[in-house]
Amino acid sequence: MLREAIYHKQYSEYAYPLDDSTLLIRIRTRKNEISTCMLYYEEKYDSSVNGKILMHKAASDELFDYFEAIICSKIKRIKYMFYLEDNYEALWFNQNGFHKHRPTWGHFSYSYLSKSDIVKGVEWFENTVIYQIFSDRFKRKDGDNNVKQGFYGGNLKGLISEFEYIKSLGIGCIYLNPVFESKSYHRYDISDYYELDPIFGDKMQLKEFIDLCHASNIKVIFDAVLNHTASDFFAFRDVVKNGQNSRYKDWFYVYSFPVSQRPKPNYECFSYFAGMPKLNTANPEVMAYLTDVLKYWTLKFDIDGWRFDVADELDRNFIRHIRRELKAIKSEIVLIGEIFDEASSWLCGDQFDSVVNYQLKALINDLFAFRSIDAELFLQRIGRYLMNHKLGVLNNMVNVISTHDTPRFLTLCGGCEKRFELATVFQFAFPGVPMIYYGDEIGMKGGDDPDCRKPMVWDNNKWNMKFLSLYKFLTDLRHKHEALRQGSFVALKVKGEKGVLAFGRKSQKEIIIIVMNTSHIKTEVNVYMDNINDGKKRALNLIDNKEVELENDTLRDFLKSYQWKIYKLE
Amino acid sequence: MLREAIYHKQYSEYAYPLDDSTLLIRIRTRKNEISTCMLYYEEKYDSSVNGKILMHKAASDELFDYFEAIICSKIKRIKYMFYLEDNYEALWFNQNGFHKHRPTWGHFSYSYLSKSDIVKGVEWFENTVIYQIFSDRFKRKDGDNNVKQGFYGGNLKGLISEFEYIKSLGIGCIYLNPVFESKSYHRYDISDYYELDPIFGDKMQLKEFIDLCHASNIKVIFDAVLNHTASDFFAFRDVVKNGQNSRYKDWFYVYSFPVSQRPKPNYECFSYFAGMPKLNTANPEVMAYLTDVLKYWTLKFDIDGWRFDVADELDRNFIRHIRRELKAIKSEIVLIGEIFDEASSWLCGDQFDSVVNYQLKALINDLFAFRSIDAELFLQRIGRYLMNHKLGVLNNMVNVISTHDTPRFLTLCGGCEKRFELATVFQFAFPGVPMIYYGDEIGMKGGDDPDCRKPMVWDNNKWNMKFLSLYKFLTDLRHKHEALRQGSFVALKVKGEKGVLAFGRKSQKEIIIIVMNTSHIKTEVNVYMDNINDGKKRALNLIDNKEVELENDTLRDFLKSYQWKIYKLE
Repeated sequence: MLREAIYHKQYSEYAYPLDDSTLLIRIRTRKNEISTCMLYYEEKYDSSVNGKILMHKAASDELFDYFEAIICSKIKRIKYMFYLEDNYEALWFNQNGFHKHRPTWGHFSYSYLSKSDIVKGVEWFENTVIYQIFSDRFKRKDGDNNVKQGFYGGNLKGLISEFEYIKSLGIGCIYLNPVFESKSYHRYDISDYYELDPIFGDKMQLKEFIDLCHASNIKVIFDAVLNHTASDFFAFRDVVKNGQNSRYKDWFYVYSFPVSQRPKPNYECFSYFAGMPKLNTANPEVMAYLTDVLKYWTLKFDIDGWRFDVADELDRNFIRHIRRELKAIKSEIVLIGEIFDEASSWLCGDQFDSVVNYQLKALINDLFAFRSIDAELFLQRIGRYLMNHKLGVLNNMVNVISTHDTPRFLTLCGGCEKRFELATVFQFAFPGVPMIYYGDEIGMKGGDDPDCRKPMVWDNNKWNMKFLSLYKFLTDLRHKHEALRQGSFVALKVKGEKGVLAFGRKSQKEIIIIVMNTSHIKTEVNVYMDNINDGKKRALNLIDNKEVELENDTLRDFLKSYQWKIYKLE
Repeated sequence: MLREAIYHKQYSEYAYPLDDSTLLIRIRTRKNEISTCMLYYEEKYDSSVNGKILMHKAASDELFDYFEAIICSKIKRIKYMFYLEDNYEALWFNQNGFHKHRPTWGHFSYSYLSKSDIVKGVEWFENTVIYQIFSDRFKRKDGDNNVKQGFYGGNLKGLISEFEYIKSLGIGCIYLNPVFESKSYHRYDISDYYELDPIFGDKMQLKEFIDLCHASNIKVIFDAVLNHTASDFFAFRDVVKNGQNSRYKDWFYVYSFPVSQRPKPNYECFSYFAGMPKLNTANPEVMAYLTDVLKYWTLKFDIDGWRFDVADELDRNFIRHIRRELKAIKSEIVLIGEIFDEASSWLCGDQFDSVVNYQLKALINDLFAFRSIDAELFLQRIGRYLMNHKLGVLNNMVNVISTHDTPRFLTLCGGCEKRFELATVFQFAFPGVPMIYYGDEIGMKGGDDPDCRKPMVWDNNKWNMKFLSLYKFLTDLRHKHEALRQGSFVALKVKGEKGVLAFGRKSQKEIIIIVMNTSHIKTEVNVYMDNINDGKKRALNLIDNKEVELENDTLRDFLKSYQWKIYKLE
């Protein structure tokens, strides 16, 4: 047995409570090596209360298998160890390492299933689909025709005028890129956190828009740019003016006085942009100021969530502080970090509920756009992604294929509509909340920023109606099938051409199966469902409503070039 | 190269800032495999700012080597990857896995060296030695001769009367087991958190005692029993009396009403003890009440630290809350958790500063008391312990060999004074704060609780004077040598009998070397110091002040059965 491959860590994504009486335990082993993996557990203070569970293989990646078991009992203080068998030996594994004989001490332990260790999603959020609107670029109505250079002039009146269009997509949530006062069209450098940008609209119109949304059960998420301000933000202006004597000098990271922008800024910025001085979010005054901003908009305008810009550079104690303060005034508010890397350290329950899932997007890019990995390797990396996170956050992740900071996905695919479609289907079928970037649904293209931020096309002669139908079909599908919103993910084995990707989503009520051919080579395929099926005999094709009989838990199918199918087991 | 052995995780003990311009990076590899391990890094937004560092082997355990490098620069946003060579191949390792050629993307990253990511110890604490006093069992003076059954009657007057004795040990901190009102001699079931137990003394006497301590620069740490109360605590009495209608019913975990203790308590307890109902520390009212208790004693009596009983069962948000509240009123207060297992998840900067180091004690037991492992395996497990924690906490850990919850170490050693001595020397020389359990210093014995809690022996005819001298020598040694308090730990290779354990402590100013023979077989020994020495030529024996010449960074020595030596390199 390859001892070096075996990994477990207490109080991590390898051991965490799902609720106050359920503990999930995970162990990593060498790929394709372990024939039997058992979890032995007992109550910490009463070893007569004990049990053993056969662990099941929950995922695999390129190098490892991951086994899981769920201890679902009334005991809250749990000691445990593992028993592993391969073809050559049997070993016990506990805190002290490996043992030929069953050890009597040195157990791993979970000392108590405490409330704050339980990572739960926000319920409404995991059941929604988000529509992302870049505020300046969606729709202008009754605005001044002479908007500033670089601006398109999208405004609240425009949003209100196109509300029926937005609603018709079947989405349940709108995420607005920044709308506060700023000199830039993107508004990621904010001059006044308490005011809307006048080009975008006024507070009366905002109230009207949000009321309209809420009346249709559509939630609204704002963009919180707290990492940095604009250089004309009042506190930074004070530092420029009064230097060392400014009472705001510790709000920023200024290396020397007077403040200067040339040849390089002598203060910390966002990515060296002199116009974006970085805030010191570990400073209690800054924390208090920004928290008040968030509370102001949340309370006064009933905002349902915040997406935090450059979230990975905010001080973590500040993030924890925001969470406490905002959840206290609105328990169902959702807090989303913009994090480009592996984000699990922000998703342990004390910081964000969710992140914009750029890590998943990188995999989606690789498979569907760049074709730099195949379906098999893709599924292995998905396996690692799943095992790096706690279950409770997976259905809350914001899954994207396009955003305002990346080329539009259709452009990334070199215009290939088929692969764009496949990626979109995957986005809607994988655990997490799909977020549609405005215009993707009608086939807009666009390269790197600012090309990906072009104004929404309102001439419907230029719309890709097939895309629009697809998006409506997919939002509708998610509304109808709880398995797509709340179900667990199960990778499925296939026999056929290499490009076939198959997986299932399983909830208490139903099992949904997704099969897609990511290659251009048509293929017959067998999809094996013995690890997900619970006795169902037929698969209902949810596109054409035809039924297919299963043979020995196997779905036999034929997939054309880049074709996808979605079934419900019956 | 064994890919399965290679492990790195962003934002964990494998990547963390030491201060606002220093990032420590760690990687785990298969033992004795990697010949070259390099760290390549660059600024996140400006790849022209970059560098590479040869990583050094910082520790090894049974299966793995651990390499470390420190990026000490002005850059605060760091992307990095690893380059690894063994005898057969060279590989690059980043977020996406292993690569034959240098990848251009997929770097690991540390997004920003933020303040709250820096885990720093409490400065006075890492420089002290603690004396633990079990409040009822130390010294009674002027107390009522007819103390309650089970009580000895140790009191504040007794502590004050023996203050010169305590001080003479050279300690800098007293940790008192619980002193609040309770029906039990151990006082781990508290009836009133705002009152001292009258048997122990009154608040005037406490003030006198603490003033006495502070005047001699001795700090005082109290015991916070917040996991559970006594059954006669006012809130629990109210629940018993008023059942479902009690306004305190959610302060506890009561499964059904009325509250009943038979046949088993129908409410959650500490370890099934009906007299210790468990508090719901996730309840904001309970949090507020207990925080007020801690603030009351801290402010009113100038308490310098708290040791939290059953800390691993407290809700983590409660621990974070306590930390914020107490550090705000006394920035140098020390917060210590009682945690029996691997404690790193409580030591990330947002919860405890330190824990009572039962994990280290288990290793000390194995080597010195039970002799179930040898010096080599001991050092490997020490290696793993070191690599599981962030550097900033190691010198703050509370290292114990005896406590009120375990048999006295001399008893664990079967009365072998030699091995007791070795363990004590190790305790004082290893990174962390040594805590002396009252009476150990004069050779008291005692098995499992309550035998290990016998009254302090004050008849000095019964004292082990050799032990007492040893303790005074060791506290003095720690005061004199900053390397023992603040230095890093370096395991040293030896040639000789298997039982020889050698390690060094290295600070900016000095290098201290500890060599001990953990077996009864006398031996010649070569201690190799090429991985710690920086050009020193001689070793000064700190016991007899004799000098030994080094030959090629090697100390040649002779150790008798169970002998230990301590040197300073010069």
